[in-house]
Amino acid sequence: MTISGDKDTYSAALIVVGNEVLSGRTQDTNTSWIAGQLTDMGITLHQVRVVPDMEGEIVTAIHDLKDVVDYVFTTGGIGPTHDDITAQSIAKALGVELELHPEAFQTLVRHYGDEAQVTPPRKKMAMVPKGASLINNPVSGAPGFQIENVFVMAGVPKIMQAMFDDVKTRLKRGKPFLSNTISCSLGESMVAHDLEAIQNRYPSVNIGSYPHYRGGVVGLSLVLRAADNDMLHAATDEVVAMIGRLGGVAHVLSTQYASPA
Amino acid sequence: MTISGDKDTYSAALIVVGNEVLSGRTQDTNTSWIAGQLTDMGITLHQVRVVPDMEGEIVTAIHDLKDVVDYVFTTGGIGPTHDDITAQSIAKALGVELELHPEAFQTLVRHYGDEAQVTPPRKKMAMVPKGASLINNPVSGAPGFQIENVFVMAGVPKIMQAMFDDVKTRLKRGKPFLSNTISCSLGESMVAHDLEAIQNRYPSVNIGSYPHYRGGVVGLSLVLRAADNDMLHAATDEVVAMIGRLGGVAHVLSTQYASPA
Repeated sequence: MTISGDKDTYSAALIVVGNEVLSGRTQDTNTSWIAGQLTDMGITLHQVRVVPDMEGEIVTAIHDLKDVVDYVFTTGGIGPTHDDITAQSIAKALGVELELHPEAFQTLVRHYGDEAQVTPPRKKMAMVPKGASLINNPVSGAPGFQIENVFVMAGVPKIMQAMFDDVKTRLKRGKPFLSNTISCSLGESMVAHDLEAIQNRYPSVNIGSYPHYRGGVVGLSLVLRAADNDMLHAATDEVVAMIGRLGGVAHVLSTQYASPA
Repeated sequence: MTISGDKDTYSAALIVVGNEVLSGRTQDTNTSWIAGQLTDMGITLHQVRVVPDMEGEIVTAIHDLKDVVDYVFTTGGIGPTHDDITAQSIAKALGVELELHPEAFQTLVRHYGDEAQVTPPRKKMAMVPKGASLINNPVSGAPGFQIENVFVMAGVPKIMQAMFDDVKTRLKRGKPFLSNTISCSLGESMVAHDLEAIQNRYPSVNIGSYPHYRGGVVGLSLVLRAADNDMLHAATDEVVAMIGRLGGVAHVLSTQYASPA
């Protein structure tokens, strides 16, 4: 999908390539970090898919998602070892060849000291799909890459986050959503009826209801998100009044996202 | 998919229903917990998909996954509020009606004290797809449900984990994988060539390579997984020898999973 013109909202999907997440060995934290970055930029994360280190699974995920969202991000599988197959899988999904990227190769030569140090496994990290542009990796040299609307990043959080600094400059920003979180100790089923009525009166405000147990105590967070500040505050006032009417005490936390660039 | 006969390995997929995960507000921990439980039971988690609270997205995920894995689990979206739409979405995906489950209704009557307390929002939590069996919820009353090979659970980790106790009794167990994790401080690209040769000699052992940065220090974990203990140990010995040959020091952590029931 080509991003042309400006829109109020852009959409994204994330493909996490990782047997280690699927086996339970590793707690993925990239999803929540990327989701937070995108939310701040007015980009809605539409789906996350965790797939194994298998070419067919990565190809299917790219085919399923590439044309339904503005941006697809991937994390993981771009290192030098045999289980790193993301670059070849993206090339296959897009029907292009994998080729040595001269600039990526020179980056590796500089990183490792001289050309002799760029052994075949290291050279593999400079192989990218034909037509891709590099994503800078200030941490460990080996670059990520962008091809069409697909951004391929490392899985190690520290490296992924550094790459995202480069990625961010290439993304269009939507109108950022504003958010209020209202906490109370009422049960979810006590507020459900009146909350639905408020949701129906404010269709442009997304109202989510999230019960939680902290230290054995039931609590409830109601999260209101909207692009329109006036609507958000009017709906928030109604939710706060509802909680008081039902005998609860409301605590409001406002989150003001960064303005669009 | 009907599970008939016994197999060495069973497969699963997890659908996380949650705007709160996609917005970055909530760090999902259910994936890693469920993945760990399944690994212990010899069930391979094949894909995780995080989707928004939208009927169409849940229906598509069920259709995509239900026939390619033995078990599909879902978390989230089964409470009393307007944004809880998992039950209706599963019913739609499977082409059945949503109906009041008498036993679920009686459970709610007991939980809330009497029938008058089971207000319409609470009653909603007893609506399940026709033909579903209930999954016990010892924490907050409102049950999950199983229909065909789909297991629908709460999103709150404490409740989901309690429900999983019931779910576990309904799952067939595969031959559990054994796992050795070998840590060293060599760079990934130093071991890549020899590691691939070991992987090629031991095709029945899955070897994953995971670099990490802890306190600014580069480290590497090599994770070997296999159903055959002898193969696992032979491959482990080769990896340890390789690390020594390359000038590193290997630390081996063995994980012995529970035996199949």
